[in-house]
Amino acid sequence: MHLSEITHPNQLHGLSIHELQEIARQIREKHLETVAATGGHLGPGLGVVELTLALYQTLDLDRDKVVWDVGHQAYPHKIITGRYNNFHTLRQKNGVAGYLKRCESKFDHFGAGHASTSISAALGMALARDARGEDFKVAAIIGDGALTGGMALEAINHAGHMPHTKFLVILNDNEMSISPNVGAIPRYLNKMRLSPPVQFLKDNLREQFKQIPFVGETFTPEMERLKEGMKRLAVPKVGAVIEELGFTYLGPVDGHNLEELIETFKQAHSIIGPVMVHVSTTKGKGYAIAEKDQVGYHAQSPFNLASGKAVPSSKPKPPSYSKVFAHTLVKLAENNPKILGITAAMATGTGLDKLQAKLPKQYIDVGIAEQHAVTLAAGLACEGMRPVTVIYSTFLQRAYDQIIHDVCIQKLPVFFCLDRAGIVGADGPTHQGMYDIAYLRCLPNMVMMAPKDEAELQQMVVTGINHTEGPISMRYPRGSGYGVPLMEEGWEPLPIGKGEILRSGDDLLLLGYGSMVYSAMQVAEILSEHGIESTVINARFVKPLDTELILPLAQRIGKVATLEEGCVIGGFGSAVAEALMDNNILVPLKRFGVPDQLVDHAKPDEAKADLGLTSSQISEQIRELFFSKQPSPVS
Amino acid sequence: MHLSEITHPNQLHGLSIHELQEIARQIREKHLETVAATGGHLGPGLGVVELTLALYQTLDLDRDKVVWDVGHQAYPHKIITGRYNNFHTLRQKNGVAGYLKRCESKFDHFGAGHASTSISAALGMALARDARGEDFKVAAIIGDGALTGGMALEAINHAGHMPHTKFLVILNDNEMSISPNVGAIPRYLNKMRLSPPVQFLKDNLREQFKQIPFVGETFTPEMERLKEGMKRLAVPKVGAVIEELGFTYLGPVDGHNLEELIETFKQAHSIIGPVMVHVSTTKGKGYAIAEKDQVGYHAQSPFNLASGKAVPSSKPKPPSYSKVFAHTLVKLAENNPKILGITAAMATGTGLDKLQAKLPKQYIDVGIAEQHAVTLAAGLACEGMRPVTVIYSTFLQRAYDQIIHDVCIQKLPVFFCLDRAGIVGADGPTHQGMYDIAYLRCLPNMVMMAPKDEAELQQMVVTGINHTEGPISMRYPRGSGYGVPLMEEGWEPLPIGKGEILRSGDDLLLLGYGSMVYSAMQVAEILSEHGIESTVINARFVKPLDTELILPLAQRIGKVATLEEGCVIGGFGSAVAEALMDNNILVPLKRFGVPDQLVDHAKPDEAKADLGLTSSQISEQIRELFFSKQPSPVS
Repeated sequence: MHLSEITHPNQLHGLSIHELQEIARQIREKHLETVAATGGHLGPGLGVVELTLALYQTLDLDRDKVVWDVGHQAYPHKIITGRYNNFHTLRQKNGVAGYLKRCESKFDHFGAGHASTSISAALGMALARDARGEDFKVAAIIGDGALTGGMALEAINHAGHMPHTKFLVILNDNEMSISPNVGAIPRYLNKMRLSPPVQFLKDNLREQFKQIPFVGETFTPEMERLKEGMKRLAVPKVGAVIEELGFTYLGPVDGHNLEELIETFKQAHSIIGPVMVHVSTTKGKGYAIAEKDQVGYHAQSPFNLASGKAVPSSKPKPPSYSKVFAHTLVKLAENNPKILGITAAMATGTGLDKLQAKLPKQYIDVGIAEQHAVTLAAGLACEGMRPVTVIYSTFLQRAYDQIIHDVCIQKLPVFFCLDRAGIVGADGPTHQGMYDIAYLRCLPNMVMMAPKDEAELQQMVVTGINHTEGPISMRYPRGSGYGVPLMEEGWEPLPIGKGEILRSGDDLLLLGYGSMVYSAMQVAEILSEHGIESTVINARFVKPLDTELILPLAQRIGKVATLEEGCVIGGFGSAVAEALMDNNILVPLKRFGVPDQLVDHAKPDEAKADLGLTSSQISEQIRELFFSKQPSPVS
Repeated sequence: MHLSEITHPNQLHGLSIHELQEIARQIREKHLETVAATGGHLGPGLGVVELTLALYQTLDLDRDKVVWDVGHQAYPHKIITGRYNNFHTLRQKNGVAGYLKRCESKFDHFGAGHASTSISAALGMALARDARGEDFKVAAIIGDGALTGGMALEAINHAGHMPHTKFLVILNDNEMSISPNVGAIPRYLNKMRLSPPVQFLKDNLREQFKQIPFVGETFTPEMERLKEGMKRLAVPKVGAVIEELGFTYLGPVDGHNLEELIETFKQAHSIIGPVMVHVSTTKGKGYAIAEKDQVGYHAQSPFNLASGKAVPSSKPKPPSYSKVFAHTLVKLAENNPKILGITAAMATGTGLDKLQAKLPKQYIDVGIAEQHAVTLAAGLACEGMRPVTVIYSTFLQRAYDQIIHDVCIQKLPVFFCLDRAGIVGADGPTHQGMYDIAYLRCLPNMVMMAPKDEAELQQMVVTGINHTEGPISMRYPRGSGYGVPLMEEGWEPLPIGKGEILRSGDDLLLLGYGSMVYSAMQVAEILSEHGIESTVINARFVKPLDTELILPLAQRIGKVATLEEGCVIGGFGSAVAEALMDNNILVPLKRFGVPDQLVDHAKPDEAKADLGLTSSQISEQIRELFFSKQPSPVS
């Protein structure tokens, strides 16, 4: 059977090991050639090919439920659940999504994108099944990295208390999240990986006996006999921690041995109560280059399959915001030992790996644990340190209460750097950084800023470090800056709550925030061609908003538009609306931003066009709204 | 020494066990008489009197740092850190706070109110200390209930990975959070409590030997000798799970034996690396009535010390919103087995204990684990159940990403019931339900409603249950309803997104949301006395907002005021501002709500007066703003 013939996972039923191995080979081929062409997650999927096939051979996916954590390892799942023929459209607009989506396939039983959710969701399904007296199987697959996320541990605590609920957790242990894992739980798992029970006994029993007081080196025949029996008693059982938490532990299993996997899953299905199957996998399995550099090949832009090298982009891009951010932070940290950069398992994405390399003592990776990252920062701030918590906008949602309860209420000087704020492109709805302006703006004591470009970002890094009165946050977009000149040192902090005028005109007031300031300038340019002259303000701060600057101009000019890359509900434009209303300045205001909808995966420019946020779309709308232009027949 | 003479915790240094016992007695006396008079948390503080004294005898609180989790057990701490003389003002306006506050005392090293934060914050302090090369001690005290919160587990994962960091975690294990604990971790702790290592060995060694194959009942002298040595090897060590996670485990220690506690803490201070001292305490210790009913006496309104009975309030109060909510939910659940009520360790507070009592199979307590609660609900919803997730507004902040990522993005029909939304009174800033309108309103697919009174709440419970298109939420206040007539059955769902007109008038449009609708009616009444006639709308829904109803009225009447019990930034008033602006209806709008500040503990009415939110204050402001009334000389 060729892989392309598999359109339903149940077609795997009854295939021999040999046949499955052949399917596995074909999946890897398809996986590799697709990601090489489109870009996407490489290592995670290659690591779970056998796991996926073995599991699906033991399940009926028309009845049974599978919940994949994160979803970036679910390409093999997608390929064998009816998406083989479309798989070349991976992560492209209207194509196959890079993560799981319930609306994409009936076999995507639960969507994902963020880590650590699968056990909770699957347990919900299992409890629903029990409540209805049904008997389908439910499995959650979670990585060892995701297992350090608090929610996964909450779920284990709950599931371990349900001895009568049939429930399978598969621990996909590749010793990595995106980077090598952090913490005591991964260390414990690693100990288990390295210590298959039988081998452990053989090697160590004599040594262990020696350590028993009164015994020493003497071994009588009687004791040799006793030794046999001791195997089951004297050695701490592998998986003991998991068993103490109420799970039956099976493993570790070689995650690339189909026979062993199938046998173990069958055994697991026969057990009542929560079971954890510990599967030891290799990220990037089957592609030597990725196996060797597991961090580098976690996810890839398009690359050459033979060399593993990225396909050079047509024109060289300016450095990314993340890179400029990290570079600036390292420079400042070199001269200020109080600065500590904190990441939650996103060292490479945030650029903090540079800090780790240069100043390892001023770098903290807490693992996938955003809540802990923020309250840890609060504790550091109490003791006079300058914690810089660098978390993607979408992931900071996971630490919302910590921001409120531990930082804002106590007015502690934690500097939040929100990478990937705004439209993120191919990662889609779960990763869009849409809500941060709205969810932070309502919190007392929080200062909020966003740079118009990467040079201003440098100034804002200094501003954030220098702001010791309370919490401060900075949002900046994914991807490249504009290539503007950067400074190597000598940055001056910006005055808190002050914007700047970039252009003057009497017909329209254009207020841009962060990544939309350059758009505002472009819009002004286009409008000027139609004889409409705009004043353009780079707001810099949404909180405190520079009402001293904005309000008199709004009053005088009489027409206002706001531009932001975030949800329009409660965002920057709303801040302006509130300020106008509070000051009884009743002038027309048009708020441009992301409307109240999900934004699907697509190139950022495509997404912006769909949302009506290109400069030409915005200028067109402004002309229609404010300057009585007749709508063009097409739009 | 009398307790009143202790104004600095270091005065405990050098006191004998006997003297400490006497101080303990006096603390309990002060604690009991105060809470009996003022109301507050009773059981938690009484349980940690000896723990506090013993710990503080081994610390120098001018240098060393102590982080209490939640803070409701910190009354003994407050009494011996300079607040004895003011302690009678507990939880009253401008008095001693019910939780810890950095601004209240230099000995409150970290504020709290929510559970599970202490290990993270304390670890931050320890890392700051190490970074600066200092050597003070840092201790976190956490309850066994709070240990199931994901953030605490994230922190343990991180701390367990720091073998060179001196760091003490004291597990205050009273087998309870507010209600008995849920989950595998508490069960494991309980096993430890019941199994002090030495005793376990004595009792079980012979039994264990019998189970070894080839040994059976035969015991040679050699084996008897071996047995001695086996003590350290053969028996799973108590605390093994904690030790596997990188902590040195000491315990369990009798939490009411000062000598044992002091010895153990001294030993703990001598260890490098993370240490967990497992202290077994009794909630309510020393007050027999509270020891017997630990749930009932977790927190109390004023009560008679001799009888333990609550002091009857001067006039009988109508049933609380929580009570009406729970009653209605139980009624509906009786006829709909798909309804499942979910609480995160707040069974009594939310009223879900009624559901548990009546329909235990339709009740789920997940422990202190809000994140898990929400994604579990998402999983249940996938399988066609009707999960009703009942979480206080302030605690739902802990599940923000789960609401977005697992519920809203997937448009799953989870019904969120936000108890304690708005001003909560004596619990203060950490517990105010201020931000939910703002933080939920920006999320796609979320329907949001709030009832004007407890009868409408009943209708909204039905509305929420019936809404199967996606997520829906309802916020309602702490405390009593208005005593309006309630129905026992036959509620009809309200149309989604439709408000109602309660009063008509041509001078002003008053828009009330939830708990402020009655205030809007009162304001209208007062204004009417001054000849100003208002149209009053009960908005019912903030999302979708009933623009069809509101906008034409706003346009026609020309003056609008909004009233809400939540932050004005991004809240209900902002929704109205956005709608007016989006539709180019340029009329004056005044938004009444909680300004951008923290709201301290005080009676709700006192807090409202401070915030300018009483009906008379609002009507006064409206007259000044909209009707050119000269401000009165006093205000």
